[in-house]
Amino acid sequence: MDIKNIKNPSFLKKLKIKDLELLSNNIRKYIIDSVSITGGHLSSNLGVVDLTIALHKVFDTPKDKIIFDVSHQCYTHKILTGRAKEFDKLRQLDGLSGFQKREESPHDAYEAGHSSTSLSAALGMALARDKQNKKNNVIAVIGDGSMGNGLSYEALNHIGSTKTKLIIILNDNEMSISKNVGGLHNNLDKIRSNYKYNNAKNKTKDILNKIPLIGSKISLGITNLKSSIKKLYLKEGFLFEELGIKYYGPINGHDYKEMLIYLEMAKKENEPVLIHVITEKGKGYIHSEQDRLGSWHGVGPFDIETGKFIKKEENKITWSEVISNHLIDLTEKNNNLTVITPAMAGGSKLFKYKELYPDNFIDAGIAEEHALVLANGMSIEGLIPFVSIYSTFLQRGYDQVIHDIARMNTHVIIGIDRAGIVGEDGETHQGIYDLTFLLPIPNLIISTPKDSIEAGNILYTAMLSKRPFAIRYSKEKLEYHKENYKIVPIGSWEILEKGKDAVIITYGSLLEKAKMIKKNLSKTIDLSIVNARYLKPIDEKLYNKLLKEYKNIFIYEENTKINSLGSYLVNYAEEKKYKGNINIFAIKDEFIKQGKREEVLKLLELDEKSITNKIKNIMKKKD
Amino acid sequence: MDIKNIKNPSFLKKLKIKDLELLSNNIRKYIIDSVSITGGHLSSNLGVVDLTIALHKVFDTPKDKIIFDVSHQCYTHKILTGRAKEFDKLRQLDGLSGFQKREESPHDAYEAGHSSTSLSAALGMALARDKQNKKNNVIAVIGDGSMGNGLSYEALNHIGSTKTKLIIILNDNEMSISKNVGGLHNNLDKIRSNYKYNNAKNKTKDILNKIPLIGSKISLGITNLKSSIKKLYLKEGFLFEELGIKYYGPINGHDYKEMLIYLEMAKKENEPVLIHVITEKGKGYIHSEQDRLGSWHGVGPFDIETGKFIKKEENKITWSEVISNHLIDLTEKNNNLTVITPAMAGGSKLFKYKELYPDNFIDAGIAEEHALVLANGMSIEGLIPFVSIYSTFLQRGYDQVIHDIARMNTHVIIGIDRAGIVGEDGETHQGIYDLTFLLPIPNLIISTPKDSIEAGNILYTAMLSKRPFAIRYSKEKLEYHKENYKIVPIGSWEILEKGKDAVIITYGSLLEKAKMIKKNLSKTIDLSIVNARYLKPIDEKLYNKLLKEYKNIFIYEENTKINSLGSYLVNYAEEKKYKGNINIFAIKDEFIKQGKREEVLKLLELDEKSITNKIKNIMKKKD
Repeated sequence: MDIKNIKNPSFLKKLKIKDLELLSNNIRKYIIDSVSITGGHLSSNLGVVDLTIALHKVFDTPKDKIIFDVSHQCYTHKILTGRAKEFDKLRQLDGLSGFQKREESPHDAYEAGHSSTSLSAALGMALARDKQNKKNNVIAVIGDGSMGNGLSYEALNHIGSTKTKLIIILNDNEMSISKNVGGLHNNLDKIRSNYKYNNAKNKTKDILNKIPLIGSKISLGITNLKSSIKKLYLKEGFLFEELGIKYYGPINGHDYKEMLIYLEMAKKENEPVLIHVITEKGKGYIHSEQDRLGSWHGVGPFDIETGKFIKKEENKITWSEVISNHLIDLTEKNNNLTVITPAMAGGSKLFKYKELYPDNFIDAGIAEEHALVLANGMSIEGLIPFVSIYSTFLQRGYDQVIHDIARMNTHVIIGIDRAGIVGEDGETHQGIYDLTFLLPIPNLIISTPKDSIEAGNILYTAMLSKRPFAIRYSKEKLEYHKENYKIVPIGSWEILEKGKDAVIITYGSLLEKAKMIKKNLSKTIDLSIVNARYLKPIDEKLYNKLLKEYKNIFIYEENTKINSLGSYLVNYAEEKKYKGNINIFAIKDEFIKQGKREEVLKLLELDEKSITNKIKNIMKKKD
Repeated sequence: MDIKNIKNPSFLKKLKIKDLELLSNNIRKYIIDSVSITGGHLSSNLGVVDLTIALHKVFDTPKDKIIFDVSHQCYTHKILTGRAKEFDKLRQLDGLSGFQKREESPHDAYEAGHSSTSLSAALGMALARDKQNKKNNVIAVIGDGSMGNGLSYEALNHIGSTKTKLIIILNDNEMSISKNVGGLHNNLDKIRSNYKYNNAKNKTKDILNKIPLIGSKISLGITNLKSSIKKLYLKEGFLFEELGIKYYGPINGHDYKEMLIYLEMAKKENEPVLIHVITEKGKGYIHSEQDRLGSWHGVGPFDIETGKFIKKEENKITWSEVISNHLIDLTEKNNNLTVITPAMAGGSKLFKYKELYPDNFIDAGIAEEHALVLANGMSIEGLIPFVSIYSTFLQRGYDQVIHDIARMNTHVIIGIDRAGIVGEDGETHQGIYDLTFLLPIPNLIISTPKDSIEAGNILYTAMLSKRPFAIRYSKEKLEYHKENYKIVPIGSWEILEKGKDAVIITYGSLLEKAKMIKKNLSKTIDLSIVNARYLKPIDEKLYNKLLKEYKNIFIYEENTKINSLGSYLVNYAEEKKYKGNINIFAIKDEFIKQGKREEVLKLLELDEKSITNKIKNIMKKKD
């Protein structure tokens, strides 16, 4: 059948296992073909093709609710629910979201992007169902990485005590984005290895073959079946059973026979069950199958044959890599520097650091809160932790920044990666709130360097500062240059370009745009450009001077307009009884959709052309 | 010995068990006497007197680090480290903190106030110790309630995989603030009951009696001792063992012999161990011993003899109670209303609601993140969840408000309790950031009602709104009145008092102060008072009118000055090219210490007298 003609998953009901296997192959091919062109999440999606088909064969969405945790692994689900045609615009402006999205389809029960929300959301839905005397199933599909996050545990803890009907599919692929860490992981490892999964699997099959297959009634009763299978697999899964959740597994996530039996069984349960499914991440594509670093987790376009990524030739590297290089150089100077990442070693380009300084590197797993308090404890005892964290995930550790780090005024450096517009991940991942939510926190220093050299210097300054210190940087690329480190005095701004008519204050990646704007305007308006590299404290001396010198001040930010730096500066000016005009160009009050950064900035009228025109119009009115 | 003369815990080393028991009694009496006068945390402190003494006998602070989770249970620790004399100013302005506080004593290794940070901080300290080749012990003392929070799990997960030397004391008193919930709790319950703790305890004693006591060398080796004890207690504690942490227990937290043996044993371990200690909360005072609701958790002054709280006669109730009453009335109107609390049923006065509507009430445990996502799931499936949460704890659920609730634009009502200055809990608990961190979130409606009737009406409006909706209220008391519910149009302000010279814009409890300020000024300045009951969206129509009518606008807030409502209004005025003067009276950029609300407001120059004078001076200059 043509994948593109699938309207909804009802056709699966009639398919035999052989047909399902054929469909798996077709969908895998379709995903590989699509993602090789558009980019997207590959490995996780290839891993759950069979599992997703099995789920849709056994359950009936949208009546039944399937919640994919994070939901970057929902491509097969999207295909089965009639969205294959739209894969040519996957993760693009106005195209298909890379995550579950309720407005796209009634089959999308929940939305995510950040990890570990599925269990809590599923329990909420199950309790609402109970309260309203409905009968539908609620199924959460969650990876072993997400299971290590505290939110999952809080939910498990609650689920275990409610005893309501709810199905958890633990999709265990032995790695989250990169290799997993933590006691939970070791526990799952043990289940897999000690009890010889492959061997056990074969034994199960023998037993299962003696049991009437799904479709006919399982007359000998779920309980007996269950306990015989459980005996086979030993008493593992204690971790979950101790919390009050029935555990089945591990089962093979690429074996339809096994999956269908277990899923039918789970469907008949009236209490929380967890099915531990082992899947192979990247399955069906040789390059992703062999990947152990997570290089095939989220990918750009690639050549299917060679597995080579299609990259534009350019002598630029990511901000993550710039920071990582500086961390390497600075750890050489001071071995107390310690880098902590909450499962983002790949995304934040920290593998090289890890290789060079394994004793100074900690992957804390998907555990933002823990990573920050861990850092705080280290700092109190004399180390200099650098917590590398995406802006959007710092939202998960907000209390720890206030209550622990800033309040105790410790020497923790927070490297805020992906600050600003993030592109294809869209709404859930925009790094546009951090500045606003960090600004009111006492003691905290907040900075955004303009280029690779300033990044190194500010990191060097942070290392010497003995203060809580945030360094923000974008998802963009930049040229990489090196110089000897020198201190950038805390709270100092700099005049990058001097002009007489007006001044534009901005920071980070936008300074490049400011330069273009100055150029665009050069015939009529002579613009100053100020690099506000410290967002807190600000350079009061320089700003006071600007207030005296200029009647027109423009503040240009890749952050929500409400209560960002500009807002602070307007208030400061009001207190100084400034009588000129201040205009803030920043992000309006709505969730910002996916699309390339340049496209999104244009939509938001924050690209250099829009800003050029705005400044022109404003200055014209003044004449 | 006189408790007040204790300088440091070194004297404990020489004491025999009988002396320790005597000391326990004296310290209990001292705590009861002190807290009966000053108020403070009683039950938790009485529960850990013996445990704390045992810890200080076995370990050597400040070299060894003892971290009390939350740390409201550190009174015995404070007494043993030379701070008994200061208990007359406990939790008062410039007095002893109710929590561990590093500036008070080198024996205070960490600071908290919010729960579940101890394990992460302890691991950070342990790893820093290892890196620096130091040898000290790190001990985290954590309650069973705190253990249910996700942060603890993230830390356990990491601790289990590091295998570093670290001691966890699980202080299990069968209740956190009130009766505990969750699978973990059930698991601990099972350990306690199934295996007949009391019986097992006696058996252990027999065995332990055959072993040379602490002080002499335990020559038969830790491992043998451990395994024999473990066999006795069966294979419980799997939850922890599965995560890679050695489990011992349960042991009796009021039996010195038992505790000292286990603590000495733990001290000799070179990997993470957890000792499960059962303590009786409130032990040694009949009224707190019998408390099952948490009424003796945090208390005001009381009469020791009768156990009656000393209350001022007044016809006021807390905001929590006002909201709770309205929730009861509105659930009668709409049974979809569902109240969720993250373990704050007592503090937020929800017991009555729970009694009347047990099916509409959920205590999610100390699990703010989970509570919010759970609510979101419920909302999507048709319920109307009201999440009752302290402002300071909402910091723990920030990402869930952005990523889940606001982004999906669901009908979740967030009741933000303790917004503003919180008094005696001090720095860690001030509810002064929420407005700033919520303002940049799209879709979210934010309100602060002025009195009990408006509270009901805004809650009623929220119930009908189908929008994410935050309602903020303070820790103060107010008169309780009832009327038929009516809608308060979203985004509407009201002019409370009309004056011609200037306008003061404020909201919530501060409106009472604004009235007094108007009165104070009445001879010279005729002040308008505007109730800005919606912080977002604002009443643009009314505000535009104010901008036209008044040359002097004052904004008065119990929130951090940086980027709060006032900041937003100044920016709005700038955009409208307002040429008058706006002054914001709000909280300066520092952590705000403990003390009665009125005292703290005075210190911050935010009391009515200070504001009166400020307005006078500003208006004088204009003349």
